[in-house]
Amino acid sequence: MRPPEALIFDVFGTLVDWRGGIARAVATAFATKGLGVDAEGFADAWRAEYQPAMEGVRTGARGYVPLDELHRENLVRVLSIRGVDAFRPAEITQLARAWERLDPWPDVRPGLKALKSQLIIAPCSNGSIALMTRLARHAGLVWDCVLGADIAHDYKPTPAVYRAACDALRLPPSAVMMVAAHNDDLAAARAVGLRTGFVARPYEYGSGQRSDLAPAAEWDIVVDDLPELAGRLVS
Amino acid sequence: MRPPEALIFDVFGTLVDWRGGIARAVATAFATKGLGVDAEGFADAWRAEYQPAMEGVRTGARGYVPLDELHRENLVRVLSIRGVDAFRPAEITQLARAWERLDPWPDVRPGLKALKSQLIIAPCSNGSIALMTRLARHAGLVWDCVLGADIAHDYKPTPAVYRAACDALRLPPSAVMMVAAHNDDLAAARAVGLRTGFVARPYEYGSGQRSDLAPAAEWDIVVDDLPELAGRLVS
Repeated sequence: MRPPEALIFDVFGTLVDWRGGIARAVATAFATKGLGVDAEGFADAWRAEYQPAMEGVRTGARGYVPLDELHRENLVRVLSIRGVDAFRPAEITQLARAWERLDPWPDVRPGLKALKSQLIIAPCSNGSIALMTRLARHAGLVWDCVLGADIAHDYKPTPAVYRAACDALRLPPSAVMMVAAHNDDLAAARAVGLRTGFVARPYEYGSGQRSDLAPAAEWDIVVDDLPELAGRLVS
Repeated sequence: MRPPEALIFDVFGTLVDWRGGIARAVATAFATKGLGVDAEGFADAWRAEYQPAMEGVRTGARGYVPLDELHRENLVRVLSIRGVDAFRPAEITQLARAWERLDPWPDVRPGLKALKSQLIIAPCSNGSIALMTRLARHAGLVWDCVLGADIAHDYKPTPAVYRAACDALRLPPSAVMMVAAHNDDLAAARAVGLRTGFVARPYEYGSGQRSDLAPAAEWDIVVDDLPELAGRLVS
C-alpha cells in the first residue's frame, strides 16, 4: 500500500484528553466559588450537549456557528439545569475556553513529530481554527495547517467536512487518511473515499468506557498509539 | 503599546524569495529541453500576470480560483507569448508548483521561531492553504495555522481577506498585526483596523528594485528583519 500524502486527525478524544482537562477546569472554577461539584460528571454532561448542538447546524436549522460558541451555550445550559447561578458571564466565557487548554495523550507529541517528518498533518476537528490554533499551542501539536469545521462551515460527520479538507490540500481523498479513535468518524470519512486509521483510546470516557473500545470495521490501519502509526507509515 | 496577540504575514517577497526560486526552477526546466532563457526576466513576466489574474476574482468576473490554478494559467500565458511549446501539460503543472519550493530570506526561520514563542503566527497570503502548507514544509515556516485567500475565497487587498483572518482567530482587528514588505498590503490591512508592521525587502525584485524600498506611511512598526520585529514584540 502506498502511504497517504496527508493525515488529518480527529482531536477531542483522539489526541487530547478532553474529559480530564475539562473536569480539572470545572473543579477549579467551582472551588473559586466555594462550591462542590462532581467534576467528571459535569464534564460528561457538558460533552453530552455537543452532538445535539451541532445537529442544528448539520440540519440547517441554524447557520454555521463556531464550536467555541456552541461550547459556551452548552455550558450555560448545563449550569442552568443544575441550578448553578454563581458565575458571571465573563467567568462562563473563561470556563468555556477550557477547551483551548487540554493536554495531549502521552504518545501524541512524539507521534505527530515523527509523522510530520514525511507527511502533511492537520487537524480535521469540529473545533474552529481559533480553538484548534490555541489548543495546538497549549498541547504542542505541530500542525502543518488547520482544517476542519471552519473550512467547510459544517460539522462532522457531514461529508462536506472531509471533502473540504481534501480540497484545501488539493489532494484526492484516496491520498488522505483520516485518523480517529471514533468508528463513526472513520465510517463517514471512508464513505467519501478517504483512507482510515483507528487509534484506540479506551480511556477517553474514563475506566468505564463502553464505546469505541475496538475497531468496528476493517479500517486500513489499526494502532494503539501514534508512534505505532508512524512506524507503519514513515520510513 | 500592548503587543498584538497574533501576527499575520504576507509571504511572497516578505518571507520567501520568489524571484530567485522561480528563476532557478525556470532555468532548470528550460535546460532539460536544451533551451536558453532569461530566467529572472521570465520570473518577472510570470509574476506580472499575478495581479491581473486575481483581479478577475476580486471584481467577481469569475468565481474564486485558488492561486495554484492562476499560477498555472499565467505560466501557460507567458510560455505562449514567448512562443515556447516545448513543455507537455504535466511538465507545465510541475513547473507551476515551483511556488511551493521557494527559499526563505535568511532571517525568517529564527525570526518566526522567536515570534511564535509568545504570539500566534499565521500566513495571510494570496496563496492557497495547499500552497502555503507545502511551502511552509519546504521553507521551515512554523505556522500555528494557515489563513489567507482560501479562508475568504477572495484575494488581498480586498478587505474581506484581512477580516476573515481576524474572524478565524476570533480576535478583533486591533489585536492582529499584518506584517508585509508591501505598502499597499499594509494600507489595506490598516483600513480594516489591523495593526501594521513593515519589514524592508529591498532585493525582492533584484538589485534594481524601485518600489517598497521604504515605508510609505507611519506604520506601527518598521523593521529591517524578523528578529528585529521579535525584539520589539516579544519579551
